[in-house]
Amino acid sequence: MNKLERINHPLKQLPNGDWLWVNIFRLSSGLTGPNVHIQANVHGAELQGNVVIYELINWFKANPFKGSISFIPFANPSAVNQKTGMYTQGRYNPVTGNNWNRNYIDFMSLDEKKSGFSLKNFVKENLESSEEDVRKKFKLELFNICDHYQNYLEQRSAAPEDGHFNLLLQKIASPSDIVLDLHTGPIATRYLYSADYQMESAVHFKIPYVLEIPSEFDGAMDEASFMPWVELSREFKKQGRDFLNKFEAYTVELGSEERISFNEAKLDANCLLNYLKHKGVHDVEIGELPITSSKKSLLKDYKTYYAAKGGLYEFCFAPGEVFKKGDVIAKSLNFKTVIDNESFSNAVSEVIAKEDGVVINHNTSASIASGQTLYQVMENLQTF
Amino acid sequence: MNKLERINHPLKQLPNGDWLWVNIFRLSSGLTGPNVHIQANVHGAELQGNVVIYELINWFKANPFKGSISFIPFANPSAVNQKTGMYTQGRYNPVTGNNWNRNYIDFMSLDEKKSGFSLKNFVKENLESSEEDVRKKFKLELFNICDHYQNYLEQRSAAPEDGHFNLLLQKIASPSDIVLDLHTGPIATRYLYSADYQMESAVHFKIPYVLEIPSEFDGAMDEASFMPWVELSREFKKQGRDFLNKFEAYTVELGSEERISFNEAKLDANCLLNYLKHKGVHDVEIGELPITSSKKSLLKDYKTYYAAKGGLYEFCFAPGEVFKKGDVIAKSLNFKTVIDNESFSNAVSEVIAKEDGVVINHNTSASIASGQTLYQVMENLQTF
Amino acid sequence: MNKLERINHPLKQLPNGDWLWVNIFRLSSGLTGPNVHIQANVHGAELQGNVVIYELINWFKANPFKGSISFIPFANPSAVNQKTGMYTQGRYNPVTGNNWNRNYIDFMSLDEKKSGFSLKNFVKENLESSEEDVRKKFKLELFNICDHYQNYLEQRSAAPEDGHFNLLLQKIASPSDIVLDLHTGPIATRYLYSADYQMESAVHFKIPYVLEIPSEFDGAMDEASFMPWVELSREFKKQGRDFLNKFEAYTVELGSEERISFNEAKLDANCLLNYLKHKGVHDVEIGELPITSSKKSLLKDYKTYYAAKGGLYEFCFAPGEVFKKGDVIAKSLNFKTVIDNESFSNAVSEVIAKEDGVVINHNTSASIASGQTLYQVMENLQTF
Amino acid sequence: MNKLERINHPLKQLPNGDWLWVNIFRLSSGLTGPNVHIQANVHGAELQGNVVIYELINWFKANPFKGSISFIPFANPSAVNQKTGMYTQGRYNPVTGNNWNRNYIDFMSLDEKKSGFSLKNFVKENLESSEEDVRKKFKLELFNICDHYQNYLEQRSAAPEDGHFNLLLQKIASPSDIVLDLHTGPIATRYLYSADYQMESAVHFKIPYVLEIPSEFDGAMDEASFMPWVELSREFKKQGRDFLNKFEAYTVELGSEERISFNEAKLDANCLLNYLKHKGVHDVEIGELPITSSKKSLLKDYKTYYAAKGGLYEFCFAPGEVFKKGDVIAKSLNFKTVIDNESFSNAVSEVIAKEDGVVINHNTSASIASGQTLYQVMENLQTF
Repeated sequence: MNKLERINHPLKQLPNGDWLWVNIFRLSSGLTGPNVHIQANVHGAELQGNVVIYELINWFKANPFKGSISFIPFANPSAVNQKTGMYTQGRYNPVTGNNWNRNYIDFMSLDEKKSGFSLKNFVKENLESSEEDVRKKFKLELFNICDHYQNYLEQRSAAPEDGHFNLLLQKIASPSDIVLDLHTGPIATRYLYSADYQMESAVHFKIPYVLEIPSEFDGAMDEASFMPWVELSREFKKQGRDFLNKFEAYTVELGSEERISFNEAKLDANCLLNYLKHKGVHDVEIGELPITSSKKSLLKDYKTYYAAKGGLYEFCFAPGEVFKKGDVIAKSLNFKTVIDNESFSNAVSEVIAKEDGVVINHNTSASIASGQTLYQVMENLQTF
Repeated sequence: MNKLERINHPLKQLPNGDWLWVNIFRLSSGLTGPNVHIQANVHGAELQGNVVIYELINWFKANPFKGSISFIPFANPSAVNQKTGMYTQGRYNPVTGNNWNRNYIDFMSLDEKKSGFSLKNFVKENLESSEEDVRKKFKLELFNICDHYQNYLEQRSAAPEDGHFNLLLQKIASPSDIVLDLHTGPIATRYLYSADYQMESAVHFKIPYVLEIPSEFDGAMDEASFMPWVELSREFKKQGRDFLNKFEAYTVELGSEERISFNEAKLDANCLLNYLKHKGVHDVEIGELPITSSKKSLLKDYKTYYAAKGGLYEFCFAPGEVFKKGDVIAKSLNFKTVIDNESFSNAVSEVIAKEDGVVINHNTSASIASGQTLYQVMENLQTF
Repeated sequence: MNKLERINHPLKQLPNGDWLWVNIFRLSSGLTGPNVHIQANVHGAELQGNVVIYELINWFKANPFKGSISFIPFANPSAVNQKTGMYTQGRYNPVTGNNWNRNYIDFMSLDEKKSGFSLKNFVKENLESSEEDVRKKFKLELFNICDHYQNYLEQRSAAPEDGHFNLLLQKIASPSDIVLDLHTGPIATRYLYSADYQMESAVHFKIPYVLEIPSEFDGAMDEASFMPWVELSREFKKQGRDFLNKFEAYTVELGSEERISFNEAKLDANCLLNYLKHKGVHDVEIGELPITSSKKSLLKDYKTYYAAKGGLYEFCFAPGEVFKKGDVIAKSLNFKTVIDNESFSNAVSEVIAKEDGVVINHNTSASIASGQTLYQVMENLQTF
Repeated sequence: MNKLERINHPLKQLPNGDWLWVNIFRLSSGLTGPNVHIQANVHGAELQGNVVIYELINWFKANPFKGSISFIPFANPSAVNQKTGMYTQGRYNPVTGNNWNRNYIDFMSLDEKKSGFSLKNFVKENLESSEEDVRKKFKLELFNICDHYQNYLEQRSAAPEDGHFNLLLQKIASPSDIVLDLHTGPIATRYLYSADYQMESAVHFKIPYVLEIPSEFDGAMDEASFMPWVELSREFKKQGRDFLNKFEAYTVELGSEERISFNEAKLDANCLLNYLKHKGVHDVEIGELPITSSKKSLLKDYKTYYAAKGGLYEFCFAPGEVFKKGDVIAKSLNFKTVIDNESFSNAVSEVIAKEDGVVINHNTSASIASGQTLYQVMENLQTF
């Protein structure tokens, strides 16, 4: 049986003095292989990943594998513990409004004073190093950048809460070859964010919908994890050498928020295990998997339908359902222009699909003001 | 076609000067018959009643009936418009914490200085009046009490927001013979709150579960509506006359919050129409109704399961599902006592049913701190 | 030096598994004397009491006293740690809306099944006991009632969060002779809630304004603490014996919320020490005290000015300031009826005092909807 | 008397159907002169600007001026009306977390498909146009870009709330020569954000502290307003002509949030009038002005002190007060490491200034978790 150990990081001291903790659960095979980092619940209401981690730990305790694997369930205790009414206020820091998954740091774009690192120099010095050696050294540099930047943040007293939280996760992930950030949508189907350069691996997740994103930084953990490696390759190219970027990072969307399912988590875990097999983490055949041919869209074809007027909305299509241009995708109710028998029919309106698509998620509430989100959909779907 | 008219009450002026409105939609048959008052959405996230009102207006526009009927959809604009994240903060005033359905006024318990009314004197003066006459006069008194109490509330400047809101609805409802307050639970089945003295009528709603509550005041609209009539009967009794209380008021729970369904609303409307037929509002046979034999519990058998520890909970039984003593009704996940392979099994725990019951509702979130609600259930169910 | 010890109660496990704690700091003199219980910060934003506790511990460490004293700073970690924007959401449970200081239990009104206690029988059995003996036994009964009621609450699984929290504080306070619950107002002066029967002691706090409340239960800690003793006296009376109620409990209001001041805390601590000297807890002369002759009002003369219209309000009188009938106490700004040069003067309105009074507190925000609180004031002030 | 007119924009329809409005108050002199746009209260709790607008309208009604002036008090009704407890949740959209002052659009960086505009072509076509002509045409282009981008946003149904709101204000401001965005800090002194190229004008506000920001875009209204003009100059330069950028935009910080003062607003209005005199809007000598020599810092010297530990903090320096390196600027209280007499002194800690500076603002609450803001300060102050 592979040995499970736990590492505890104090994350945040509350005003009354109590602490919130980040707990890392770590399994090492003792064999050479990829370092895998899997975290869940960075957004407070996005819970299912924690159960998937439970199933994965169960699996990795009992099965042979290579390399090491670190799990961080409940990665963001500030968020998961914040309630308004019965709901978890999930997506942003309630003090600052900052989205918990948009404050990671783009290390390669920091100036040297903040990072203590020059990519140009690093590549110059390692133009002749072996790929393996470059990877090893670069991981160490990433770790050091975290420290250096932390010092920069703390120049007046402590670091800001958001910066501290996101940087801690980046630091823990710095020695990794694979980073999986487990999220959910609001009321959503399962889907995957994958950078364009990883699409061949992405198919092994067996997740039905994949959003292909460009290799650019927009503040999220997956981007913050892969961008240094993308930039490393680019810089090697610039200095005349082809360096293969084998690093991969994904945001995995595991259905709807505010709920968990142990049964579904078994299948979700299998999807991740199937991908990890493809990446050489283990050799075990994974049995039950979703019967699916994945479809993908480009990020530019990920569209949002906003409400044109305030009212109550019934969603006529569920997450994962396909609709056609011209379909009634939502019906709304609003009595504001009803003043007599004739105008009564004004109470109900319809929202019509502008193009073919598939519903990825919809609002968690039927009560929606003008300008608030109805649906997020993928269009121009391609099988891959 | 029966004529629909709209009456507008300014409810609340926001700090920027804009107004929130209460709009009443009214149909009068011109024939003698009961006055019916139907309101929805007093709790912000409880939406389905608005759609039921839409279906009912459609029906009453087109069908013959007796008496008059007033509808107040979106009865509480302060609540329905209050968002935190994508969710509607539904149950309480965000400034005061007051539950929007616990601040109605118990008119008969007010001292005369506040109400301008003496029940004892009213009965004494009407000991010889006809029942019809008593009802008519008493409705007028209820209306006057609202005015009198409003003046009391405004003694220093304006009335408090909560008091003003609840009193406005009571005032609008004062001429009614029947009051239906349309609510929903969190994630819930359909059920009905009925005072003990109304149970024979309650069965005509064809709603599967009925909570029989005592004829007492606990702040809700149904209680605030029927208690004056209950007290009126009691006072007549005390002064030696039997006075039949024909007034009825119910809280009707229409499933889960934060969602609407036009299809379900048709069936919900039929349930209400079937009850209203029983009460003489109309003679039309109502076709499609839930195939159900209603079950009831006493309020003392309406029990809450609270979380003994913090964690993520999977609810093993859905609203409306029956469970047995000893059943695992929930499974929870929490890594706090996991420190190695041996303690890993601590991560999952089970919640066991203490008695047989049926799930009425459960928490809207799987993420639950110790002491927060898991389930509300009915026990000791009886067919009636 | 008197010995300080700390006792830790786990209060609440968060969904991620972390705990919030109640920490009690206890000093025992070893001498016979009153047991004193002092808690602070039950409402999340009401902070100054924690600093006063700091000053009091400093004092009690160094000075001779009788009896024992327990301090609970940060008594409500659920509340003090809840932020929305930069502000602390202070007064109510964000899940249920329940005011943290309105859920204490009125033990003497519980039926025997819930409390395991009969006051009538207790008095009957102790008709001949010494006063000292009665007090000792009654404190023990109060402790046992807490346990008994806790079991009742936990009949289905755990107890509800609100009940659990308030009951824990009542249990800790059950052996006390004196209970001081340290609060603040919103933007407020210093004042004191005192039950009518304690007014002679209340004067020794040297706090400028005292609200005299009837010996009745309305859910607060002071009432929950003194009502059992009030009822005990009443029952003795009923059974023919005069029993002197020496128990006292106060809600002490220490200015404005969301702020602390170490300097002011020294003076606040002196006020409390002066009162405790009067009660025989110590003999030390307290030097610096506010130069004040206290004024009191009856609870019925504690009035609230609500906003008649939405707008921005400037408060023309500060907490502690006296105003006269007819004074302009607030000016408001609202452009909603301004449409041209002529109507421009509508933008500003005045709020006029209806009676003489003193400002106890006003809203923390100038941005106020109709029906929200402007001022709370005392009228019919009497020197005492 | 100059004529005041009002223009009403429906901004947002709430789920219940009620509307929130943006009302513009406009005065035109009929004479050639600058178009001035003054808005207030984009952040919900930042109220004082509305009163300043009241005072300015009063002034402009009665005094001769040139050009036209548009006022938008209560510019953001979504924000000003959002309460949690008694406080206004001010800085961000409660659904999305987006800071209301960080979602303006950087028109010049939009690709042509989104803006319908090419700066390069515009300059090419106007290389020979008079400055006055260029300004006139460019304002028209800005207006058209707003429309074009609005259409882009609405490609699936309506535009998102945040985008719609910010774009509406930009569209209203598009014909302006001067834009003043009136804000406040949390608990703050008066200060000004000025782009580097405007510093010579900035001094005429007579506001004590000025933050000199680079001419770059970071999402705020001032930047969104001046950046197109800055880019216009740069492009002219690139194409070989010097084009003088006379456009100016400022964020004016008027003290603390959640409060108003009519007296202070008179002085604030004078500051703005003094600046507008300098810009040729009027010729009237402005009497009472703050006696001040303004100090400035560069944005890089605007520093934040974050809390290193959770606790209650007393702020030892008020906004506007100067401190020295080594000064104790805050004291904190936290009992978590107190377990006995010896450790009691751990309860209080000090925060020490790292460099000389002046307090610009501090947290609105004394109750602060680790990583949350204590102070924002200016360092390296220079008189200018």
